Amino acid sequence: MAEEFTIAPVRRLLKKAGNLRVNEDAANILRTFIGEYGTRISEFAVENALKDNRKTILERDIKKAAEKVWIPESMQTE
Amino acid sequence: MAEEFTIAPVRRLLKKAGNLRVNEDAANILRTFIGEYGTRISEFAVENALKDNRKTILERDIKKAAEKVWIPESMQTE
Repeated sequence: MAEEFTIAPVRRLLKKAGNLRVNEDAANILRTFIGEYGTRISEFAVENALKDNRKTILERDIKKAAEKVWIPESMQTE
Repeated sequence: MAEEFTIAPVRRLLKKAGNLRVNEDAANILRTFIGEYGTRISEFAVENALKDNRKTILERDIKKAAEKVWIPESMQTE
């Protein structure tokens, strides 16, 4: 399971969204989802770099990968 | 812009996916995407809690919110 992230920034995100109390299980599952989202994008980004015979992941690899997973609304309207 | 997360865990996710070099802009945009993903889920989760007249965000609020944004594959097959 991808749990790269610490819990503190996850709790901050939740607090910022509405200043409600945050149940511990709620923070933990959001941490898991965030880790899986990041892992998924990372894997597609690596595929994109390898397809181009590159040994470096570039910004465009991430952008292309994100499109396959989920496109942030603010990016769609650019 | 949601940049709650530090760059180190983002770089680790990218390294773990393929051990390629990671361009700085690539890591930064992934950090942004991850922050936006987390923010989006957090906002839906707050809505879900408020609809139920709760002052606490629960695990089910996050799960329901994640379905609106993006469902991790591993969760779909549960």
